[in-house]
Amino acid sequence: MSTALRLAVAGLGTVGCGTLRLVQAHHDLLAARCGGPILCSAGSARDRHKDRGVDLSGVRWFEDASVMAADPEIDVVLELIGGADGPAKQVVETAIRNGKHVVTANKALLAHHGTELARAAEAAGVSLGYEAAVCGGIPIIKSLREGLAANGIRQVYGILNGTCNFILTNMRESGREFGEVLAEAQQLGYAEADPSFDVDGVDAAHKLAILTALAFGCDIDFDGVYVEGIREVTSLDIAYAAELGYRIKLLGVSRMTEAGVEQRVHPSMVRLDAPIASIEGVFNAVVAEGDFVGNILAEGAGAGAGPTASAVMADVIDIARGSRLPTFAIPAKELTRPPAVPMDHHEGSYYIRLMVLDQPGVIADVSAALRDARISVEAMLQRGRAPGEAVPVVITTHETREAAMKQAIARIAALDAVLEPPRLIRVELF
Amino acid sequence: MSTALRLAVAGLGTVGCGTLRLVQAHHDLLAARCGGPILCSAGSARDRHKDRGVDLSGVRWFEDASVMAADPEIDVVLELIGGADGPAKQVVETAIRNGKHVVTANKALLAHHGTELARAAEAAGVSLGYEAAVCGGIPIIKSLREGLAANGIRQVYGILNGTCNFILTNMRESGREFGEVLAEAQQLGYAEADPSFDVDGVDAAHKLAILTALAFGCDIDFDGVYVEGIREVTSLDIAYAAELGYRIKLLGVSRMTEAGVEQRVHPSMVRLDAPIASIEGVFNAVVAEGDFVGNILAEGAGAGAGPTASAVMADVIDIARGSRLPTFAIPAKELTRPPAVPMDHHEGSYYIRLMVLDQPGVIADVSAALRDARISVEAMLQRGRAPGEAVPVVITTHETREAAMKQAIARIAALDAVLEPPRLIRVELF
Repeated sequence: MSTALRLAVAGLGTVGCGTLRLVQAHHDLLAARCGGPILCSAGSARDRHKDRGVDLSGVRWFEDASVMAADPEIDVVLELIGGADGPAKQVVETAIRNGKHVVTANKALLAHHGTELARAAEAAGVSLGYEAAVCGGIPIIKSLREGLAANGIRQVYGILNGTCNFILTNMRESGREFGEVLAEAQQLGYAEADPSFDVDGVDAAHKLAILTALAFGCDIDFDGVYVEGIREVTSLDIAYAAELGYRIKLLGVSRMTEAGVEQRVHPSMVRLDAPIASIEGVFNAVVAEGDFVGNILAEGAGAGAGPTASAVMADVIDIARGSRLPTFAIPAKELTRPPAVPMDHHEGSYYIRLMVLDQPGVIADVSAALRDARISVEAMLQRGRAPGEAVPVVITTHETREAAMKQAIARIAALDAVLEPPRLIRVELF
Repeated sequence: MSTALRLAVAGLGTVGCGTLRLVQAHHDLLAARCGGPILCSAGSARDRHKDRGVDLSGVRWFEDASVMAADPEIDVVLELIGGADGPAKQVVETAIRNGKHVVTANKALLAHHGTELARAAEAAGVSLGYEAAVCGGIPIIKSLREGLAANGIRQVYGILNGTCNFILTNMRESGREFGEVLAEAQQLGYAEADPSFDVDGVDAAHKLAILTALAFGCDIDFDGVYVEGIREVTSLDIAYAAELGYRIKLLGVSRMTEAGVEQRVHPSMVRLDAPIASIEGVFNAVVAEGDFVGNILAEGAGAGAGPTASAVMADVIDIARGSRLPTFAIPAKELTRPPAVPMDHHEGSYYIRLMVLDQPGVIADVSAALRDARISVEAMLQRGRAPGEAVPVVITTHETREAAMKQAIARIAALDAVLEPPRLIRVELF
């Protein structure tokens, strides 16, 4: 390629402007690495006249992003609008229909419509790049689709949401509770005004669903992801985790089992010496386990203008260099549909924290509930004595089935001496 | 591609056999991911009749690997012989001359002849893959060449040699000295009978020279790498490092500066909270700093049959999928030749450990030597009192020039009260 590759940028928020800035700053570098120049030649956003602090001269303006996506003078459409449906989906579909390559940072769109969009792109002979949709600047899509492509993947897991990791890190370091730290994260710009998308685990689940499809060659199944956020994590549990040699992280875990694919996002206790435990603050990290390569960990900034623009442009560079890669590592029409393993079938270890009335017989009742569900206790910890008052009791278990655990917990919760709903956190022994 | 891609495997040691095993184990997976089957259709090694525990039926045998590399029935030649020259180089050159793609795991070959081989491959229109040459299974070549290709790279550094990292980790954990731990590493198969290639830093320097070319778009300059191994690291220094909040790692560091490229391999003190500090045992890790993406860390197994075969086959999959990528991220004929920054010009902080006679005036003499070289002391630590006997004195400095430090150290070493050659370890404040 020696003629310019012409990009159309749909959406000029943080990521769109970051991408424009990158293309302008690295004009020569990109030309050297791609064999020809790359130009942002068209743009579209809701408000043309907003001051974005970025040079838009030479960028043809379109009021309608879908019209832009069909323009014959465009080679690649960057969809940086966001949202699972609406204009974002329309732009991507229009671009594909018109034979344009698409690069998107939109995890919601992919998680909900990724399989059908991949099929459409491959049928049209165009690329659908989405490196920026999962963990920002970390080249995890490329690593799975290409770098580890010679491996059968056993599991993929990671810290997929920087906001949650920032909050959990900050709670641990400061000893403060969720609400207070969330407010600070909002002030610092690490959490949205409406934080539910992040703190309830939805954002991480979007990313996990994409990673699952890529790792195991199956249709994206966002509805198959079990999701639990971090609102219920307390500083007390974080302190107990530390005492037991664990750290609490919001993990996304995807595993291929004999019964199907297990996908889950929830707070997890990870051993302090596990590499993932030391990923702190807003950073993201993903571990992929391949049958030949073993565990590969990739860490970096999961969000932000610069890292996300870096990922968007990595996809553009692939396109400019002529690489044509199957969207989810195998042709989209060959993606399989393995069953989703229900969470009740999950096998794992558990941390349980109860607030109980300090009176004789409570521990016996709790133990009996666990025994009757055939759950084997690893350790039980009661701190302090306060006869007639509430004290925390912490229990860790050996591997058991989630259904058995739920049954035991229901019985424990119903005991008169158990004063608050039991807190349950899954333990991951990576 | 729907016809088979035919591989010729030159060299059937650990990596060659691992690759054969992977291709056999993942026949269907590779076909799905590449759009057609991949076959190991030819092989060559010194001893045909050695029992390698791998199925060679269907593999055409060649006594001469270079004859194999010219065979018209071969599409890709895997050079897994090793060595900077001799048969390995001949096989690669023959393959390129005959229009075959080449994949190699040979870091010595690349470090010494990488630029000329890349030029030859690009002139012949074939790929030269070398993912397996740097840090085994970690897809760091792909990450730099493609994943971070939209960034200007500021620096690349990492733990590039698993043997050294195993030894340093083990020394720290056990408190034992280098010689004893090396012997154990040899018994465990983590170190060669002749360990000099690893422990003297040469292997890490080969990998660093390759990373440098890729990161900064310059000719490979192995002679420009400053190299110092780990033989002189003592358990005493490891203990002091821990006390000061550091861990000692053999790092390779490559940095683009205004004066040129600085490439160095030597024991380094890294802060305990730096992500690279927690990479332990035989694992490797590389950090790349891009101007848009920030720091990206990739960690995994840097050696071994499985991880290396995974990397070899990642390059093969790229070839099978039709990707044609510039060897060092830009066309080889455009690689630049920035000056190598001599180590004397290095600017950094230092740890100095002296064994001095515990007598009045010693510290004053040492301090004067540092002051006269305009070196600013950060901390000085003298442990215990033993009048008239040898005691360790530890000094850490603020940033200074290596030349000034050498001058000060020469003067300090010449003091009568300084009983052993001073130990100097560079401190990296990532």
